[in-house]
Amino acid sequence: MRRVLLLLALVPALLLPQGSYAQNAQRRIDVSGRWFVNFDFHGTPVTFSLVLMQEGDKLTGNLQEIKLEGGLQGNSINFLAKSEDATFDCKGIVQGNTISGTLTYANAANLEPPSTHPFTATLVPQRTSAAPQRHEFVPTVFYRQFSAANKPVLTVSPGDTIHTTTVDAGGSDEKGITRSLGGNPQTGPFYIETAGPGDTLVVHLTRIRLNRGWAISDDALVGRALDSELAVKMKDGGKPVRWHLDTQRGIATPEKPLEHLTRYTVPLLPMLGCVAVAPDSMQAAPPTGDSGPWGGNMDFNEIVEGATVYLPISVPGALLYVGDGHAVQGDGELNGNALETSMDVEFTVDVIPGKRIIGPRVESATEIMAMGLGGSMDDAFRAATSSMAQWLTEDYELTPSEVAQVLGTAAQYKVSEVADRDAGIVLKIKKELVQPLVPAAK
Amino acid sequence: MRRVLLLLALVPALLLPQGSYAQNAQRRIDVSGRWFVNFDFHGTPVTFSLVLMQEGDKLTGNLQEIKLEGGLQGNSINFLAKSEDATFDCKGIVQGNTISGTLTYANAANLEPPSTHPFTATLVPQRTSAAPQRHEFVPTVFYRQFSAANKPVLTVSPGDTIHTTTVDAGGSDEKGITRSLGGNPQTGPFYIETAGPGDTLVVHLTRIRLNRGWAISDDALVGRALDSELAVKMKDGGKPVRWHLDTQRGIATPEKPLEHLTRYTVPLLPMLGCVAVAPDSMQAAPPTGDSGPWGGNMDFNEIVEGATVYLPISVPGALLYVGDGHAVQGDGELNGNALETSMDVEFTVDVIPGKRIIGPRVESATEIMAMGLGGSMDDAFRAATSSMAQWLTEDYELTPSEVAQVLGTAAQYKVSEVADRDAGIVLKIKKELVQPLVPAAK
Amino acid sequence: MRRVLLLLALVPALLLPQGSYAQNAQRRIDVSGRWFVNFDFHGTPVTFSLVLMQEGDKLTGNLQEIKLEGGLQGNSINFLAKSEDATFDCKGIVQGNTISGTLTYANAANLEPPSTHPFTATLVPQRTSAAPQRHEFVPTVFYRQFSAANKPVLTVSPGDTIHTTTVDAGGSDEKGITRSLGGNPQTGPFYIETAGPGDTLVVHLTRIRLNRGWAISDDALVGRALDSELAVKMKDGGKPVRWHLDTQRGIATPEKPLEHLTRYTVPLLPMLGCVAVAPDSMQAAPPTGDSGPWGGNMDFNEIVEGATVYLPISVPGALLYVGDGHAVQGDGELNGNALETSMDVEFTVDVIPGKRIIGPRVESATEIMAMGLGGSMDDAFRAATSSMAQWLTEDYELTPSEVAQVLGTAAQYKVSEVADRDAGIVLKIKKELVQPLVPAAK
Amino acid sequence: MRRVLLLLALVPALLLPQGSYAQNAQRRIDVSGRWFVNFDFHGTPVTFSLVLMQEGDKLTGNLQEIKLEGGLQGNSINFLAKSEDATFDCKGIVQGNTISGTLTYANAANLEPPSTHPFTATLVPQRTSAAPQRHEFVPTVFYRQFSAANKPVLTVSPGDTIHTTTVDAGGSDEKGITRSLGGNPQTGPFYIETAGPGDTLVVHLTRIRLNRGWAISDDALVGRALDSELAVKMKDGGKPVRWHLDTQRGIATPEKPLEHLTRYTVPLLPMLGCVAVAPDSMQAAPPTGDSGPWGGNMDFNEIVEGATVYLPISVPGALLYVGDGHAVQGDGELNGNALETSMDVEFTVDVIPGKRIIGPRVESATEIMAMGLGGSMDDAFRAATSSMAQWLTEDYELTPSEVAQVLGTAAQYKVSEVADRDAGIVLKIKKELVQPLVPAAK
Repeated sequence: MRRVLLLLALVPALLLPQGSYAQNAQRRIDVSGRWFVNFDFHGTPVTFSLVLMQEGDKLTGNLQEIKLEGGLQGNSINFLAKSEDATFDCKGIVQGNTISGTLTYANAANLEPPSTHPFTATLVPQRTSAAPQRHEFVPTVFYRQFSAANKPVLTVSPGDTIHTTTVDAGGSDEKGITRSLGGNPQTGPFYIETAGPGDTLVVHLTRIRLNRGWAISDDALVGRALDSELAVKMKDGGKPVRWHLDTQRGIATPEKPLEHLTRYTVPLLPMLGCVAVAPDSMQAAPPTGDSGPWGGNMDFNEIVEGATVYLPISVPGALLYVGDGHAVQGDGELNGNALETSMDVEFTVDVIPGKRIIGPRVESATEIMAMGLGGSMDDAFRAATSSMAQWLTEDYELTPSEVAQVLGTAAQYKVSEVADRDAGIVLKIKKELVQPLVPAAK
Repeated sequence: MRRVLLLLALVPALLLPQGSYAQNAQRRIDVSGRWFVNFDFHGTPVTFSLVLMQEGDKLTGNLQEIKLEGGLQGNSINFLAKSEDATFDCKGIVQGNTISGTLTYANAANLEPPSTHPFTATLVPQRTSAAPQRHEFVPTVFYRQFSAANKPVLTVSPGDTIHTTTVDAGGSDEKGITRSLGGNPQTGPFYIETAGPGDTLVVHLTRIRLNRGWAISDDALVGRALDSELAVKMKDGGKPVRWHLDTQRGIATPEKPLEHLTRYTVPLLPMLGCVAVAPDSMQAAPPTGDSGPWGGNMDFNEIVEGATVYLPISVPGALLYVGDGHAVQGDGELNGNALETSMDVEFTVDVIPGKRIIGPRVESATEIMAMGLGGSMDDAFRAATSSMAQWLTEDYELTPSEVAQVLGTAAQYKVSEVADRDAGIVLKIKKELVQPLVPAAK
Repeated sequence: MRRVLLLLALVPALLLPQGSYAQNAQRRIDVSGRWFVNFDFHGTPVTFSLVLMQEGDKLTGNLQEIKLEGGLQGNSINFLAKSEDATFDCKGIVQGNTISGTLTYANAANLEPPSTHPFTATLVPQRTSAAPQRHEFVPTVFYRQFSAANKPVLTVSPGDTIHTTTVDAGGSDEKGITRSLGGNPQTGPFYIETAGPGDTLVVHLTRIRLNRGWAISDDALVGRALDSELAVKMKDGGKPVRWHLDTQRGIATPEKPLEHLTRYTVPLLPMLGCVAVAPDSMQAAPPTGDSGPWGGNMDFNEIVEGATVYLPISVPGALLYVGDGHAVQGDGELNGNALETSMDVEFTVDVIPGKRIIGPRVESATEIMAMGLGGSMDDAFRAATSSMAQWLTEDYELTPSEVAQVLGTAAQYKVSEVADRDAGIVLKIKKELVQPLVPAAK
Repeated sequence: MRRVLLLLALVPALLLPQGSYAQNAQRRIDVSGRWFVNFDFHGTPVTFSLVLMQEGDKLTGNLQEIKLEGGLQGNSINFLAKSEDATFDCKGIVQGNTISGTLTYANAANLEPPSTHPFTATLVPQRTSAAPQRHEFVPTVFYRQFSAANKPVLTVSPGDTIHTTTVDAGGSDEKGITRSLGGNPQTGPFYIETAGPGDTLVVHLTRIRLNRGWAISDDALVGRALDSELAVKMKDGGKPVRWHLDTQRGIATPEKPLEHLTRYTVPLLPMLGCVAVAPDSMQAAPPTGDSGPWGGNMDFNEIVEGATVYLPISVPGALLYVGDGHAVQGDGELNGNALETSMDVEFTVDVIPGKRIIGPRVESATEIMAMGLGGSMDDAFRAATSSMAQWLTEDYELTPSEVAQVLGTAAQYKVSEVADRDAGIVLKIKKELVQPLVPAAK
């Protein structure tokens, strides 16, 4: 079954208090702003997003998706957040940028008796207007799970740029040295200041360049691509194939081409197979071969230099991971492996506070793209359509009838990935078609 | 179940006798050449392809896929075609370009007793070297099934060009007059001389132009595109939407745009939703909303002016149908209807004798494309991959390992159709990548 | 695309006039009752269901799903049926049980200009109270399409019983004589008096018995059952296997069992692979290997002696077809062929007027079963769930929440068919669970 | 991509040395037997299975699936295991039941340079003939991942019986006290002595009984069950429903039944939603809502008292988890939640050394059952078929043709699960059909 009792599935768009996000240095304590509330629920670490708005002694705001009311007396704070499903009764003491206290959770349906848990809340720092920084980061550890529990390797601010490298899917670096067991070991996680659950992370990929002259692939076709007849023909596939990457000429060629491929060359188009944020800590950390709303091993060959990736944030700091560089990849990553290689990458991060998207989005100079992921291509296709419908509804303010008319005339679907547990389908729309629809106020 | 006892599923590549396709006017009868054998099998009309090669009194060749041996005495002919599954024993009298006689069918496994059937065979005319003709054809009847039983509206030769019109999916012509019940009524069928089972039909689309200023669509999204959440949002869809087609400016706009679509325009890209040949007469004739290896309602928005469509032929004359013009169509035909309109079309037909492909292929100036059709997108995806693997294997002589390497680096998949019973996925490869692989002899 | 302009997709439950279904022998003409309206729509024969209720000179009722209003003057009749999508304006002359006149169809959205068509309507006879009859029927023709155009072989009344035989899927009869090309040739169609579009046909299978001692099957596994690994293992399958049917001992055994199957026996459980009604005449007639809401080649191994099959009727007389007997069939019909054999069958037919179901239903002594059909198992699964939800909603008057609770605790799903174009999944519920929920009034 | 460089996907059936599994107490060291080799591969803990057979100074055997050769000099051991893909060169010192040394891994294709890693190997104890024990185990910690890293809560021997309890899917125990965050918290893991990678775990469920009088469910239908129409009808679902469990009468009823369900009762059939072993440590630990070859959240309503579950073991000790009790569950677990409740469970464990199965198997008194899991029902269906084909091939020694004939006549498929990421389909065969086929030697 799927029953998870702490009923807090989704954090919707937040209404943030205007202009008073940090604690004021006034005489009276002002707790207005956004906080991360951490507590332990019978052994599982949980982080909630808390938005408080203070007027005099009265508090309003939200705990995750739930409206709250409460008050402040001296440095004693209390509030009650009550939804159809659950009630959270919080009491605590404010000390600087920290609140300590207890949270009592009661299931509205009285399915179980209430339980009380100590919590600590910390104020989320406001975004600063300081000049963006560029960080050089040399990775020394490579993670194999997109985990909220991995210690951030670097903390940066929105607007900052990170320059770093990634090892290949098998764990080998630019010198061919094995640095990790394979399975898409990642560089990161990077902690982005001010980012929290309910926000969207923006990753501008400013540089994705090869940093070695070879890549590894193979000659199998993945099972998902094979009907029974082709399966029989392809039964002997699976041998490793080493490719030469010629950055001068911008092409890849098999190092030892078979008879009919001696004239085969394919243009280099370096891309990142993985861009991810950490899912929330209540979930098991996914392996770096998996994908989900949080991105991950999307293996989409338009996540290239110049593209922007948007991901929904579930944990404080977003925890950004990158890895799994491909020198070239056909749609679907049919060999299971693309031309796997290490990579020299640079990206600028940003945060859109209070904007929650339901799945990965990608933007190029000319197109907006919504990615659908699912256990079958049909499910992935529906997810992509649903995600783009959300995009058109929220950012372009289209009604359902209008969404249908635009999709019917402008939709372009391509297959991104069939080699992993999730298949991926991407729904693209040319910007020139929807640009005229942008609401005046935006 | 699926049991069809007459075991003649596929006609493989034929080895045709060189240069003696027609009957010689010599003293001695020469039956060398290709014949269509027609007989009635307990109420079902059946057409077989027969290739005879005569040396003296001895006959060799093939009946469908099966090797035959036989002889000729005066104008008496007899031959036996025997496969693992079945035996066909034929006896007849040759009179000019006709053979009349009896065919005795015996199931090799003795599942049933043998049965004997009168047959008539007619010699397939040889391809002439006459100059190609251009035919003006004004349709008066529109068929709603891709049937082998519909009488050809025109007979043309390979190399000929046909200029005609199509009504829209709802049956309305360029003047808006209803000419047929809807459901993609077709112009055709056109009989192509020399074409027969086991050949490939080539349709060069030289002209696909609008011939009226409006199109009909709607504002629904088809069920296959909806997850449960989007289904709820889209529940009120389905109203017809009339579009203005501005051929001057090359754009389409809703005639009465809703509030947020007043600035929405989309470039015209006229295409044919249907290009088909008739399936063999042993099968029920499919409705013109269906698709299959024989093409049909493929709704692929790259079947445009300039494209070439290849279809496997199953009946004498191929019986080509065209229809279902779209002024514009997003990938997948998400509204169920694209911008449905009548069309002015012109195409040149050709036949590749003895080449059998397993599904529709499309070629543009820059790409080769194999279409997969299936009950799910996953099945369509596998079919597209399998069809392109055949293409690379047969036309480029690649081994399975080589096929895998090319597909892994060069495959591009797009969704063609999700609005009909079959979903469609198209696997495309840039010609510039595979052109260097063309075998020297080709 | 899918555009069929004559917008008459579904005939909903009809409200039939009480007790005056036939024409009264009064002085004044009374047209109250149900009529079948036949006309030709640009080459396509169309049949509509018309229900008229007369009060004085005023007429109310329905044309297909659309409410109508009209009047009668002498023997001149006129009425207008107007929906959101279309208007039908009918004028005619009543003569006995026939109305002749013209029908003018206008698309509400003015997509095309109106068109006028001559029609003939015939009064549907009322159900008689005569004693049910038993008909012996010896088939001489076997159809390979579930067509509305095939001439009925026998006309019977609701409540009547038909005793007949079916040939096997390959066309062979009880003596092993080939009577038709294979592909599930059918016995029928049987015309059921009073039955018309919008009704439900009930087929009680009172006898399904073997009438010969052998069956044909094979040793392949169909593609839908094969992952890539199993495809390789099964690559040599496809040889015919002849089975001995021992009705004395009630078992089947391979006639020449392979080494490890010498002790293999399987109990006989004779079933019908096909039970169908004809789809409406606007659709292409499906091949007898296909399935749909109208039933067809369902290959469900619980369609056995004692079971009742329910099918939604689309044409006058329902046009019932039966065929494709299996001596034994595992779930899914994995070999493509089950143990195919001829059969001795008897069934009693009935009609539920005005009850429209969305797909095939089956009932046994202990279970109710809703069949879902679709291009993938996932689609078939959804269709089965949707069909059972309709059943629980309409016959048991359950709300959506109640439907969910019953399905969550009582649903049993089995795979019926994977060997044909549609996969089939059946949702079963034990009668003992839902029997207590039957509304008091029923 | 999916590239994991340490090429050791599957451990095949092992040929274990006969009768000398433990170290002999002879003068000369004898290392014959089975060892677990632990090492760290760039941060990832890896466990390999090592089988050594000693003759004089010479060693043969297997490291995982790879044949090895080596020797022993005094207490110095060395061996080389070499496959097509990789070479492992091991050197070490034997001390009692431990070997310490270094393992050098080289990729055969020279994809990366070789790397050397310290290892420790420990001898696997031989199975003792001691009388089986019964263990009372009271759980205090509940895990939410099927992890190889969780410390075993109890170590038992093959043949032993464990009596314990499980909390419900939401983490509540028999008294309704919340003991864990929800999401199927598990009791375990239990370490089974002698069990290791390449073996099969056998879990005889001897007792699955309710230990409280209520369960929680809801009134939603999961998305996978909804077509667009049913999605709209079910849009308001999702409210919790509390059920009364009456163990006296053996039935469940809603505590506050809605209007039409006041007479609805459903028989109790307590089952375990989760039975799992830990996947190998190179994989990320799956959440307890997921399933795989290692079992997990299978939600199959025939995993009941009296059933036996077979799972392929990937780690030393197998690490058995159990949880997610359901008082009643319809096929598919359509509500997402079944009747979720705590449970009193008892089971006897056993190990089949050297037998590797490809997925979960279940056995009842009357049936053998192979479970298929996959991202779509179609994939799950293929997996179930493939798994049963393996079963028939290995245990019944059937050829592919024979497998096809048995499946075609004996297969029964049911849907186990549609509520989680993997769908599940179970292929069942009646034991009475295949029992006569058991090879004489078995």
